[in-house]
Amino acid sequence: MGTVYVGVDIGGTKVMAAAVSASGQVGPIARRTTPGRRVEVTLVEDALTEAVFEAADGRPVAGVGIAAAGFVDALGERVMFAPHLPWRNDPTRSRLEARWQTRVVLDNDANCAARAEVALGAARGVADVLMVTMGTGIGGAVILGGTLLRGRNGMAGEFGHMQVVPDGHGCECGGTGCWEQYSSGNALVRYARSRMLHASYAGTTLLEELTGGDPAALTGPMVTAAAERGDHLALQAYEEIGEWLGVGLANLVAAFDPELLVIGGGVSAAGDLLLGPARTALEQSLVGAGHRVVPPVVRAHFGPEAGVVGAAALARSAG
Amino acid sequence: MGTVYVGVDIGGTKVMAAAVSASGQVGPIARRTTPGRRVEVTLVEDALTEAVFEAADGRPVAGVGIAAAGFVDALGERVMFAPHLPWRNDPTRSRLEARWQTRVVLDNDANCAARAEVALGAARGVADVLMVTMGTGIGGAVILGGTLLRGRNGMAGEFGHMQVVPDGHGCECGGTGCWEQYSSGNALVRYARSRMLHASYAGTTLLEELTGGDPAALTGPMVTAAAERGDHLALQAYEEIGEWLGVGLANLVAAFDPELLVIGGGVSAAGDLLLGPARTALEQSLVGAGHRVVPPVVRAHFGPEAGVVGAAALARSAG
Repeated sequence: MGTVYVGVDIGGTKVMAAAVSASGQVGPIARRTTPGRRVEVTLVEDALTEAVFEAADGRPVAGVGIAAAGFVDALGERVMFAPHLPWRNDPTRSRLEARWQTRVVLDNDANCAARAEVALGAARGVADVLMVTMGTGIGGAVILGGTLLRGRNGMAGEFGHMQVVPDGHGCECGGTGCWEQYSSGNALVRYARSRMLHASYAGTTLLEELTGGDPAALTGPMVTAAAERGDHLALQAYEEIGEWLGVGLANLVAAFDPELLVIGGGVSAAGDLLLGPARTALEQSLVGAGHRVVPPVVRAHFGPEAGVVGAAALARSAG
Repeated sequence: MGTVYVGVDIGGTKVMAAAVSASGQVGPIARRTTPGRRVEVTLVEDALTEAVFEAADGRPVAGVGIAAAGFVDALGERVMFAPHLPWRNDPTRSRLEARWQTRVVLDNDANCAARAEVALGAARGVADVLMVTMGTGIGGAVILGGTLLRGRNGMAGEFGHMQVVPDGHGCECGGTGCWEQYSSGNALVRYARSRMLHASYAGTTLLEELTGGDPAALTGPMVTAAAERGDHLALQAYEEIGEWLGVGLANLVAAFDPELLVIGGGVSAAGDLLLGPARTALEQSLVGAGHRVVPPVVRAHFGPEAGVVGAAALARSAG
């Protein structure tokens, strides 16, 4: 039985891990819940450990790549800051190497997803690409001339914390009005929940059934399930985050003028429910839209698994 | 008498031209008023012609570089679209070559300014720089690894049309809530004018004297003159556009994570009146500010003349 490379994606809500082949074949996904951002670091690392060992399924692990929803330093050693996770300037890589006794590499989740899409997915052969990952929040990565832009602090591509509403919703990052407060898994649930509380929706939505009538019990997967069954309230919630996705993409296109926009992360599983309204809003909001080629907005080929695939590829390329 | 290279900067309000030496020595500035955006193209080109010939002052012109506040195609042939100017997909370069019988080169104004600052000014030796030019509106340029990012359509760096306020002020570009509606020469005048109309300011501000009591007569230079004399209303207007400058810079730093931010354009002449509030707002708004190096915000070395210097350098390098 050969060795395996395991990719792990840790977001604000869940941990996913899988063994990934050199050609990008993804094994069964091991899933855990992210313990939260106000817990002991060891709790998060216990969840990672369980997921990695489940994904390896008894095979020797040649290396683990970790895609983390946070700021990773330029050397890939530390998670400097992560709005949805407890790590703060933390030597994550070396501690997990010691614990797992195998090589560990670490990068930002969106960087990993972009790596997968450029090498094996929706952005093959494209030089200038922006990757936007929509999960609990929004992550981003910038590929220019085929190369990942890291930036001065290794923090380029933090699109989710660009302000789109002055004095808007408070954000886990400490700011207000951040894009991810209006377009993300969290935003999807917030919109749907606030509508459930309107009397005019009483008795009209599947979400009441799915939550047992308790808006506080609402989760992202419930909204998705309802939208897929045509529920009007759930569809409106997707339209709302889709429109905000398009508005934010228009800002990014004004700044970068890329060839392609690739949308990944868990929320991207909704496909055109999300991307349809986003494309419309992009066309409407983009400066000079009638005088330029507007870049296509496509779903990540690896969908919500792009981070896992890219993390495993990073581990493999590190030897 | 030797030949000269002339740089011209055409913005929404004014045209500036000067002969510029190879080392960046700027001759006397010839100034004209931009005729507007709803006029015949020939009127704009007449103003350019007068400015160029005044700057040349009888010397033979070896080449003219034009820095234009608009979208220039990737070949430098056409002004595709310019919110503050009448050109629309217009073969500007070739027509002016025919008229002036000399070589003409054309680029976006902020790209020209960035070229000057990287080669000879505030960004010498810095690899990753964002240039923001504040005139009538906001222009921008992106230098990464020492190279200008042009983008798919040659439109990278159009920072001024990133939306910062949903359903905000209408913009000449057709959008709403664009950054330049809140931080630019136009915004400076709008803020000061709206305050002049408040009864509580009656008899307290130099702007009444400078405008003869007519808020409609207010101009940007009047606000600057009043601010330099300590006028509280004019200072507040600078503070307001400075804060918005910082908020927008925080968005750009989240996306690009650059080493340096250089502020040029006519409004940058105000120096720390503008940059002080901008630095404070950048620190307050930037994601992860306590966990990263926040890039310095500096005034363009060539100040409002950076576009002219860069345009002349472009003409010189084109032979």
